[in-house]
Amino acid sequence: MSLQSELETLATFTDAPPPAVTRVVYSATDLRAREYVKGLCSAAGLSIHEDGVGNIFARWQGADPGLPAVATGSHIDAIPNAGAYDGTVGVLGGLEAIRMLQRAGARPRRSIELVIFCAEEPTRFGIGCFGSRLLAGSLDPAALRDSDGRTLDDWRFAAGFHGDVSQVRLPAGHYSAFVELHIEQGPLLEQSGTPLGIVTAIAAPASLRLWVEGEGGHAGAVLMPQRCDAFCAAAEIVLAEEAAAKATGAIDTVATAGICEVFPGAINSIPSRVRLELDVRDIDEARRDRVLAAIDHACKEVAARRGVTVRKETINSDAPAHCAPLVIDALTRAAEGCGLAYRKMVSRAYHDSLFISRIAPTGMLFIPCRNGVSHRPDEYAAPEAIASGARVLSKTLALLADL
Amino acid sequence: MSLQSELETLATFTDAPPPAVTRVVYSATDLRAREYVKGLCSAAGLSIHEDGVGNIFARWQGADPGLPAVATGSHIDAIPNAGAYDGTVGVLGGLEAIRMLQRAGARPRRSIELVIFCAEEPTRFGIGCFGSRLLAGSLDPAALRDSDGRTLDDWRFAAGFHGDVSQVRLPAGHYSAFVELHIEQGPLLEQSGTPLGIVTAIAAPASLRLWVEGEGGHAGAVLMPQRCDAFCAAAEIVLAEEAAAKATGAIDTVATAGICEVFPGAINSIPSRVRLELDVRDIDEARRDRVLAAIDHACKEVAARRGVTVRKETINSDAPAHCAPLVIDALTRAAEGCGLAYRKMVSRAYHDSLFISRIAPTGMLFIPCRNGVSHRPDEYAAPEAIASGARVLSKTLALLADL
Repeated sequence: MSLQSELETLATFTDAPPPAVTRVVYSATDLRAREYVKGLCSAAGLSIHEDGVGNIFARWQGADPGLPAVATGSHIDAIPNAGAYDGTVGVLGGLEAIRMLQRAGARPRRSIELVIFCAEEPTRFGIGCFGSRLLAGSLDPAALRDSDGRTLDDWRFAAGFHGDVSQVRLPAGHYSAFVELHIEQGPLLEQSGTPLGIVTAIAAPASLRLWVEGEGGHAGAVLMPQRCDAFCAAAEIVLAEEAAAKATGAIDTVATAGICEVFPGAINSIPSRVRLELDVRDIDEARRDRVLAAIDHACKEVAARRGVTVRKETINSDAPAHCAPLVIDALTRAAEGCGLAYRKMVSRAYHDSLFISRIAPTGMLFIPCRNGVSHRPDEYAAPEAIASGARVLSKTLALLADL
Repeated sequence: MSLQSELETLATFTDAPPPAVTRVVYSATDLRAREYVKGLCSAAGLSIHEDGVGNIFARWQGADPGLPAVATGSHIDAIPNAGAYDGTVGVLGGLEAIRMLQRAGARPRRSIELVIFCAEEPTRFGIGCFGSRLLAGSLDPAALRDSDGRTLDDWRFAAGFHGDVSQVRLPAGHYSAFVELHIEQGPLLEQSGTPLGIVTAIAAPASLRLWVEGEGGHAGAVLMPQRCDAFCAAAEIVLAEEAAAKATGAIDTVATAGICEVFPGAINSIPSRVRLELDVRDIDEARRDRVLAAIDHACKEVAARRGVTVRKETINSDAPAHCAPLVIDALTRAAEGCGLAYRKMVSRAYHDSLFISRIAPTGMLFIPCRNGVSHRPDEYAAPEAIASGARVLSKTLALLADL
C-alpha cells in the first residue's frame, strides 16, 4: 500500500457523505479509523502503546533505546464536514517517513516514535488539542464536558480507554525533539510556488463561549420597543468581533464566530437565549488580547443598551510558541539535502505542536494545499507535495535521531 | 373535572420539563394529548370526527341539525419550550362553553361544533396554521416538508391519519359563524385592567426562509480580507430586519429572526452556510410589505459587499383579516350580558381564525395573560380570566346558534 492509497482509505472512515470527512473523537468511526492506522503501524514493525485517553504511540526502536526518542505525528480526528488531509498527512506521512528509513536500511541511534494525538479538533469537548494538552500537563481533564454535560471519563470509558488519566502527562525531556508534518491550511506556499514551509512560530489562539440571555416571547405580540432579543444582541457581538479583528490592521489577526445556537429556535418565538463560540488568533499575543478586550467591551455595551445579559467562559487562551532552533536547523538541512525550496513562515492555525513545544524542542513542516482551503470537503494536497513532505520529514527524523 | 384542572392535566402532555410545554404535531405526546381531549368531548356527549390530517370536529347536535353549525375552537400543539395556555384555552374553554349551555338546559337551533385544529404552530412544517389553511383551501398539502424533507403524508400516515387530503377542505358556508377564544399574548388587557378583548382585525403575517451561502475554511488560516463568512452576513441581515421594522414608526410593525442554523457549526471553522427564518407582521399589509422589501434590499446589498449569495423562500405571506360584524355583535352583546368590560382591539398574533375567516364569518375573544407573555414556560392566564372568557363564549355561541 502506498502512502497515497492509505490516505484514501483513511478518508473512507467518515460520518459524512464522501468526500466530506466527519470523524469525531471516540465515535465508532474514529475508533475504527484508529484500528486501521494501528494496523499499518504494526505492519511496519512498530510497537504500539495507548495511554488512558487514547493517544497512540508507535515506536521504532533505535540502536540506543535508553535515549529519549525523537517523535513525529499529528491527529486523525476531523471536524464535521471536513476534508481528508488535515492531521492525516502528518500521521500517515510520519509513518511513511519511518518506513523510508527502514527501506534504506538506516539504524538511527534514538528510537523514533509516531504519535497519533487522540483529538486535535475541539468538536467533542469544545477545546482543541486536548490529547496533546494532557500530554503537556496544561489541561485539567476533570473540567472537560461535552455539550450534553458528559465527562471525558464517560466518553473514554465507553470507548474502551480505562487507564489512569493522571499518568497521561509526559515529563519534559521525554522526547529529544518533536516535528510535525502538516498541510499549510493557508495559501502562501501555493501562491509562491514553494514546496515547503518551515514553521518558526505558532499563533496564539483564544476561544470564548458566550451566553446571551434576553427575553423570549411571541413574535407577533411583543412590540419592538419592549423586546430584549438575545439573537439581535448576539448579531451585534459577532459583527463587533469581526470589526475588532479588522481594526488591528495586522494581517495576522483573525476572528471567527463558528457556533451559534438560538433558543428556543422557533420562527414565531423571540430568541430568549443564544450560545456563541468565538475564536481569536494572532501571532502577537498582546494584539490578540486587545481584540478580546474589544469583544468584552462590545458585550457590555450591547448588554446595557439592549437589556440582555452576556456571560463569558474562556475556553482557552494560549501563548504562542516559538519553534526550536534544533528542529528548524534539521528541517532546513533536510530540505536542502532533498534539493527542495522552502520558506520560513508562521503557523496561523494551531496544532498539537503548540502544546508539545512546552515539553520538547518542537518544529513543523508545512506542505501546500489547494487554494489554502482546509476544514472543508474540498481540502486537497497533491500526492507529489505529500511525498516531498514525507521525504523531508524522513531526513529530518534521521538527523534528529542521530544527534 | 373543572376546566382549570383539565388545563392542568393537558399541560402534563409535554416533551419538555414542566412547566414548559413542548407538543409538536404528530409527536407521540401530541397524539396522546389528542386522545385526552377527545375523551373529554365524548364525556360531554359530543360526536367526534377527524379528517385526513387530524383536524378534530366534536359536534353537539342542534335542534335543526340540517343548518350550518356554529363553530368554536383552537389548537393544542405547542412550540418548543412554550406554556400551557396558548390554544388550549380556546379548546378546553370552548368545550366548557358548550357544557355550560348543556347544564343550563339550552337547546340551540344550530349545532355547535368544537374544532381542534391539527397544528397552529409552524414547528413541524415551517408554516403556521396548516390545519386551518387546509380547511380554508389556502395551502397546497403536497408542498409541505419538514426540515428533514419528510412530507405531510409521511407524518400523517405514521400518526394514523389515512383519509383523503383533498377532502379536508371545507366549503364556504359550511359554518354559519366561527369564534375563537384565546389569550391575548400581549399586555394591553392586563395593563388597562380590562377582562375581555373583542378582536376587530388580525394582523398580516409573512415568513421567510433565507439561505446565506458564503465560503467556509479554517478559522486560523484564512485571513480576514479573504473571507466570505456566511454568519457575519446573516448577522447583518438580522439587524437590517430589526431596523426596518423599527423604521416604519408604527407600533404594530414587528419583525423577528427566530431560527438561525450555522453550518458546519464548529468553533474553528468559518461558517459556510446559514439558514435564517424571519417573521414580519403588521395590521397594515402594505406597510408590512415595505419591511419585506427593505429585507430584500439588505440581502442584495450584503451579498454584493461580502461575496455571499442569499436565496429566499417565502414560507407564507398572508393578508390581514377583518372580523365579521355578525360575530363582533354577538361577542359585544354576550360581554354586556355578563356585565364584563371589553375593549375592541387588533390581534397582532395570527390564529386559525385568520384562515377560517376566508370561509365563515369569524371573530375572536381575548382574555388577559400575565405580563403579555406567551410562547414561554411562564405563560399564565388566571383561572377567573379563563372562566370569564368561557362564560362569554358560551353566551356568544348561544346567540349565534339561534340566529
